Amino acid sequence: MEITLDILQKVIKKREPNSHKGNFGRVLLIGGNINYGGAIIMAASAAVHTGAGLVTVATNKENLSSLHSVVPEAMFINFFDKVSLTTAISTADVVVVGPGLGADNRAKEVLEVTLSNISDNQLCIIDGSAITLISENDSLKELIANNKKIIFTPHQMEWQRLSGIPIDKQIDDINLQKQTSLNATVILKKHHTTIYHQSGTIDNLAIGGPFMATGGMGDILTGVLAAFITQFKESSLDERINAAVYLHSYIAENLSHKYYVTLPTDIIKKIQKTMLKVISEQK
Amino acid sequence: MEITLDILQKVIKKREPNSHKGNFGRVLLIGGNINYGGAIIMAASAAVHTGAGLVTVATNKENLSSLHSVVPEAMFINFFDKVSLTTAISTADVVVVGPGLGADNRAKEVLEVTLSNISDNQLCIIDGSAITLISENDSLKELIANNKKIIFTPHQMEWQRLSGIPIDKQIDDINLQKQTSLNATVILKKHHTTIYHQSGTIDNLAIGGPFMATGGMGDILTGVLAAFITQFKESSLDERINAAVYLHSYIAENLSHKYYVTLPTDIIKKIQKTMLKVISEQK
Amino acid sequence: MEITLDILQKVIKKREPNSHKGNFGRVLLIGGNINYGGAIIMAASAAVHTGAGLVTVATNKENLSSLHSVVPEAMFINFFDKVSLTTAISTADVVVVGPGLGADNRAKEVLEVTLSNISDNQLCIIDGSAITLISENDSLKELIANNKKIIFTPHQMEWQRLSGIPIDKQIDDINLQKQTSLNATVILKKHHTTIYHQSGTIDNLAIGGPFMATGGMGDILTGVLAAFITQFKESSLDERINAAVYLHSYIAENLSHKYYVTLPTDIIKKIQKTMLKVISEQK
Amino acid sequence: MEITLDILQKVIKKREPNSHKGNFGRVLLIGGNINYGGAIIMAASAAVHTGAGLVTVATNKENLSSLHSVVPEAMFINFFDKVSLTTAISTADVVVVGPGLGADNRAKEVLEVTLSNISDNQLCIIDGSAITLISENDSLKELIANNKKIIFTPHQMEWQRLSGIPIDKQIDDINLQKQTSLNATVILKKHHTTIYHQSGTIDNLAIGGPFMATGGMGDILTGVLAAFITQFKESSLDERINAAVYLHSYIAENLSHKYYVTLPTDIIKKIQKTMLKVISEQK
Repeated sequence: MEITLDILQKVIKKREPNSHKGNFGRVLLIGGNINYGGAIIMAASAAVHTGAGLVTVATNKENLSSLHSVVPEAMFINFFDKVSLTTAISTADVVVVGPGLGADNRAKEVLEVTLSNISDNQLCIIDGSAITLISENDSLKELIANNKKIIFTPHQMEWQRLSGIPIDKQIDDINLQKQTSLNATVILKKHHTTIYHQSGTIDNLAIGGPFMATGGMGDILTGVLAAFITQFKESSLDERINAAVYLHSYIAENLSHKYYVTLPTDIIKKIQKTMLKVISEQK
Repeated sequence: MEITLDILQKVIKKREPNSHKGNFGRVLLIGGNINYGGAIIMAASAAVHTGAGLVTVATNKENLSSLHSVVPEAMFINFFDKVSLTTAISTADVVVVGPGLGADNRAKEVLEVTLSNISDNQLCIIDGSAITLISENDSLKELIANNKKIIFTPHQMEWQRLSGIPIDKQIDDINLQKQTSLNATVILKKHHTTIYHQSGTIDNLAIGGPFMATGGMGDILTGVLAAFITQFKESSLDERINAAVYLHSYIAENLSHKYYVTLPTDIIKKIQKTMLKVISEQK
Repeated sequence: MEITLDILQKVIKKREPNSHKGNFGRVLLIGGNINYGGAIIMAASAAVHTGAGLVTVATNKENLSSLHSVVPEAMFINFFDKVSLTTAISTADVVVVGPGLGADNRAKEVLEVTLSNISDNQLCIIDGSAITLISENDSLKELIANNKKIIFTPHQMEWQRLSGIPIDKQIDDINLQKQTSLNATVILKKHHTTIYHQSGTIDNLAIGGPFMATGGMGDILTGVLAAFITQFKESSLDERINAAVYLHSYIAENLSHKYYVTLPTDIIKKIQKTMLKVISEQK
Repeated sequence: MEITLDILQKVIKKREPNSHKGNFGRVLLIGGNINYGGAIIMAASAAVHTGAGLVTVATNKENLSSLHSVVPEAMFINFFDKVSLTTAISTADVVVVGPGLGADNRAKEVLEVTLSNISDNQLCIIDGSAITLISENDSLKELIANNKKIIFTPHQMEWQRLSGIPIDKQIDDINLQKQTSLNATVILKKHHTTIYHQSGTIDNLAIGGPFMATGGMGDILTGVLAAFITQFKESSLDERINAAVYLHSYIAENLSHKYYVTLPTDIIKKIQKTMLKVISEQK
């Protein structure tokens, strides 16, 4: 079904008065090698601005200074420090792995530690090169075979790698079959993103557009997703995912009336206001 | 008693024409290990924006670049350099210790140097993991036993650790008893924060809310507190503390009409304007 | 001919709905030694804000933190790592080399690797000290002798070095002769910039002014140029170059009604809005 | 005489159309040790925003990342690299030395290299701990004994150190005598700053106030001064100095109607607009 604005009004709740940051979730984001540090920084900033209670970034130490410069609210761990990484995973409500992770051996190692330590009912969003690495390594795929809360966020080429379905064959029936066998949610990012939910439902996004076609746009979606999933537990997982995906493109669409191209950092700045505006306009 | 807006109008004074930065206090903030650098950066930025005359941050050297990127007005010292740290403590009007300090052995060492060098009538705000470390180490507690100007800023779990009172038993009578024996001010951060003053007075905050439930919110309170305490010496310590606590939540509350979640860095940006606005509206 | 506002309306196209970031080009910017890191950071930020799909910066590792702090959308490679640099060149649609590169031996080495690996029909913008290095080293000049898609962006002194024509002799006839023998586009930056196109056409800019006379202004022109060239392939190369040069000064001119001096970072902030405004006003 | 707003209208000139960044001066700022990096970063940012053509910062290498993050327009050199520092001095139109320099032996060394290499008619602004170091070392004082273009910017305690005049004895007659023997301009920063010009004239500032009493405020004055001196050569040195000092406090005064305390970084953001506004309102 087509996702519409009312999903935001349904999912985003006014916060309970007597709640604290622990109620709004611990999000751990793993990624950002020496080349792609900006990806994980933007993902973390998106999670912070969307309202996640506590946000930790596991990344290459080279990204520490820029992380704190851009988003001092986020905490840091060195992703090569296995003890810290394992501990952080064990206490996280949602784990994001992949933004700017890269695909070399050290990235693979980090991914291996991550997937090995995620418990079978811990929610994990797998993005970017982490999808590619999993596509290429059956041993990685097996590590999450029993976890029914995996969310993949591939673009079409990454989906081709993961599913084996060539881009021009990626139609709902075929995608659904593969997604079912993967036992995971698949958010297939493209012009009008399609979401294949664990529940078997297929949802579509009719908003968003080419003004979003810029590097880093997918990274911030992971941050918004993580924060929605961990905050709004009164709604079903399907609804939370739909709402996050919708919000991301909805902000971009609004900005596209002012900007020729919409940058990820532009969207981040509008998250807090848009979330409040949407629920304030609710009847 | 419930703290109200007029505490700001009472405490915040128009500055004396013939005053200089030395009149508005030297604030030293100690914290920020390699994982939690953002905490001390935000605390320092809050102190600078609240009007402290000179702000120095003693932190892990890894946080130097991001500190200057976020708040070039603040000065830096390496908190592992005992000579520098000791010298800085001796010239500070107010010391904040704890934001992002961590709880490992090196953090304990820094805290030990800090508490050993604070003179008995030097004001010291103890926050975050510094509270936890003191809870666990009687030797640390003894270092400040004779100082009547200690302010603890625990959240409920930290107060449980420090006081031994389980969260569900934390009622005024019991808290007050423990606070009296600690010989310190206790700002117990929770939904509607309660302040147990040295004077025996108990004050309550009726504003603030769950839109503030995000990591780093407590860190900036320490910076606001330090700057109020060191600037507004015409008011009593109780009044200055109440005013700082009120301002912090008052700004957040104002922002909550525009933002779904209010971030620490959002509050920092509004401090200067709000402080002027409040006293300008005074009759 | 004099370039006018309608060049923007002609070149800037509404994006095709079904397009992705790959359609808007991979821009590689090479420069930024330890002294002039800001130059390449600003160039990259300009490219990102102008809408380039994917922007990578090859620079000195010392510039990594500030790059991500200023523009997290950009990716990083160490320009002394020949394998990474060569790979990045091979996949780039447009290469910019020179902003903040410096003129020492290590800079020369980076330039040599760059020019050796650019294929004969790959577009390359050569700026700043890269122009000076080429002027002084025939071996470098030879590396690009067969490439008809080279764009030089010298200011008058750099053009004197490259062409041998003293500044006071730099008139169209003489410049054109030299440009023809160079087999390259020459954007001669001065009060009212002149563009000598590969096609033999000479175009002039009548806007812009001394409010732009500040360090870094030329750096961001390279970023805007790269993003226009790679995005708007329906227009001829001459048109895309003219449009980029015009936009850069047009924004500066607009800002000059508000600011005494217009900084490069001020212009960057206005690119997205100006691009949309210009095409929205189109009849 | 009291300096008034019309000094800005007299000194700030519309730029000549056919001018380039070389016409607006090369400013070199030397300072920023590992503890006080923010000082030199803010000074540089002020110079850039005031319109200096090319701004270079000689500082501790630890400040490189934050310098580029805050003001990518500025260039960097390591102030311990004597060859680079000497070369930069030789090509600078104005040298600022002192903001955040510190007073240890390495700072003294940097100051020694600086003063030894400044030519006798090269303008040099000496600020902060550089004043203290000169006060304590006759050998440093001698290095600039023949330079009639030295500007000292002490606050009252620094002036006491340099002049030997205790703060409560610092009245015009006595100050003037000392300033004459120093053969330098003295900008004595205090509530209502007084300027003792080389020409023997004494000028006073009646604006500014305690809202400016915050660390770093003096640092940005040096940047504004340097940029005025190097840009507006049609006015006398006295006039340019008066204008810079006035602008700095004028912006702070304007901001004091909105902010309780005015931070250096707030002032920087307003320089460009204020400079244009002032000359636009000119009849």
